[in-house]
Amino acid sequence: MDIVRTVAWSDDGRAVRIIDQRLLPEREVFRDLATIDDVCDAIATLAVRGAPAIGIAGAMGLVASVANDAARRPADLLARLRELAARIGGTRPTAVNLGWALGRMLAAADGAAAMGADIIERLRDEATAILDEDRAMCQRIGEHGNTLIPDGARVLTHCNAGALATGGIGTALAAVYTAVACGKRVQVYADETRPLLQGSRLTAWELQRAGIPVTVLADGAAATLLKSAAVDLCIVGADRIAANGDVANKVGTYAVAIAARRHGVPFYVAAPSTTFDPGTARGDDIEIEQRDGDEVRRGFGARTAPAAAAVFNPAFDVTPAELVTAVVSDRGVHRPPYDFSRMPE
Amino acid sequence: MDIVRTVAWSDDGRAVRIIDQRLLPEREVFRDLATIDDVCDAIATLAVRGAPAIGIAGAMGLVASVANDAARRPADLLARLRELAARIGGTRPTAVNLGWALGRMLAAADGAAAMGADIIERLRDEATAILDEDRAMCQRIGEHGNTLIPDGARVLTHCNAGALATGGIGTALAAVYTAVACGKRVQVYADETRPLLQGSRLTAWELQRAGIPVTVLADGAAATLLKSAAVDLCIVGADRIAANGDVANKVGTYAVAIAARRHGVPFYVAAPSTTFDPGTARGDDIEIEQRDGDEVRRGFGARTAPAAAAVFNPAFDVTPAELVTAVVSDRGVHRPPYDFSRMPE
Repeated sequence: MDIVRTVAWSDDGRAVRIIDQRLLPEREVFRDLATIDDVCDAIATLAVRGAPAIGIAGAMGLVASVANDAARRPADLLARLRELAARIGGTRPTAVNLGWALGRMLAAADGAAAMGADIIERLRDEATAILDEDRAMCQRIGEHGNTLIPDGARVLTHCNAGALATGGIGTALAAVYTAVACGKRVQVYADETRPLLQGSRLTAWELQRAGIPVTVLADGAAATLLKSAAVDLCIVGADRIAANGDVANKVGTYAVAIAARRHGVPFYVAAPSTTFDPGTARGDDIEIEQRDGDEVRRGFGARTAPAAAAVFNPAFDVTPAELVTAVVSDRGVHRPPYDFSRMPE
Repeated sequence: MDIVRTVAWSDDGRAVRIIDQRLLPEREVFRDLATIDDVCDAIATLAVRGAPAIGIAGAMGLVASVANDAARRPADLLARLRELAARIGGTRPTAVNLGWALGRMLAAADGAAAMGADIIERLRDEATAILDEDRAMCQRIGEHGNTLIPDGARVLTHCNAGALATGGIGTALAAVYTAVACGKRVQVYADETRPLLQGSRLTAWELQRAGIPVTVLADGAAATLLKSAAVDLCIVGADRIAANGDVANKVGTYAVAIAARRHGVPFYVAAPSTTFDPGTARGDDIEIEQRDGDEVRRGFGARTAPAAAAVFNPAFDVTPAELVTAVVSDRGVHRPPYDFSRMPE
């Protein structure tokens, strides 16, 4: 199975190799990010996207940015690293994983300096560890999720919670990849996911590349598909999961969950346990980002609504826990009643 | 209130003046269709669309096509009319209104010939009558629908059931226009309605032109909007209504109806009584047209899904009668239990 590697070291190990997601599905272009400008531009313009993938690209990008600075005195190098990390972190200020990964890198650099070790080697190891941990986490989500997917399953998903969003095989799609790797036959329906079309552009592309049958549909057609008994289960990712099990995910997820319930189709959420937010009691407490109206008014170059039209464009919605059949994480399959006020064992 | 005239006679009365809906909302271009080629091209390429509007344009277009043939012998003219009507009717073979309007025109021509009357004058009167009847029907739908719209109402609609789909002020939007004309304050939320975006391109444009506040949203955001208590009622059009009240309408309608029910928001359907289909017992008996996958794979010029991706692209869906709070037609407001096995009084 040919699952795309979204973030990796370049052949000589001095740059970060990413697949440019701005060009998908039209063209498959890998780019080596070798300078701070390359790294910041790639993250800011969504050439690399998805919270885990951004964190990894930021950490590895920090290494690439100082690869030629090995001759600096340690104190100068540490100061330079803080400056570069601030620049990278500023590209997507709301991406929690990015700040977390960069903080971890700076701590590793400080530790190496205190020990008199090679700072850049230490950073390279730390970035590789962040990548490897993400890959392992995806594998575990896939193994747990696989237990929910029967042979012959027809699976509906929304947005992209796949390899393109992570350093590994994804979260929701990890379950699909693992099931297929175990010899099960699986076919996927992918909501296109307006306004940014992560489903039709990215999910369909990576599944097709892996040889898994995929059918794209407009978001509004999902309810009819569910009614027609063509779907055995839904599985989506999550951006944040409240203590009571309410799930914030890409806008449109809630509509799928409502229709799935109406037609008796299981609705699963797959996400790393780092997505659990014990400090948020319920979904209503999650602030939902409103995004630029031009995402709706201008669809891929064409004007698709009057220039002066007001737009309601929330990035996410909240699916109440009562509609979620189970949550799959790297720690297992969690069933209702949910309690994520403390981390599951 | 400046409500767009979708189909009308040109200034000199020899051509059919339409607004070119292919160019909306980018440009507002009216075209005079003066020849059979103009008429067929406009209908085939969706410059004019919406079942009632197509029927009217076809009937009026038939007149324009023979406007220079007045010197022909009646028998030759009747033969020529049959040939032209077949060409016009062939542009959108599944549009019931088009065949119905052209059949009515040919019968009028035959009648005039039998009476020794001026065939072309008779045809012009018949086409004008078809237009006027549609306008009157829209008015009546608007008057009945207005009774469901309170002052200050926030209304969610899907697709375009407005002036752009008819010869008059529309069906679902007729209720809005009439309420506003009565001095009520109304604001509208318009689902963009993928794949062809009739909501964001057409509904938003015609409401804005009429000075009615309109907010566009991706189809997947409607459930969240309904959850937020920002909507007082939903109103949509219909392509066909079965005897038991099940409603076939643009794909995505069913998802709105499910979410509206979940959040206790009334869901109304507005359509001409000609949409009632007593011969179809229930919605499951309605055959749903599957449309070309490139409507989803290629969004307005850009590639939005892999070229080889399979696509599920039904043109319509069916909303079961149990989710429909009331049906509004030119004959009144119909409440459950529905029985359209005979025409309402």
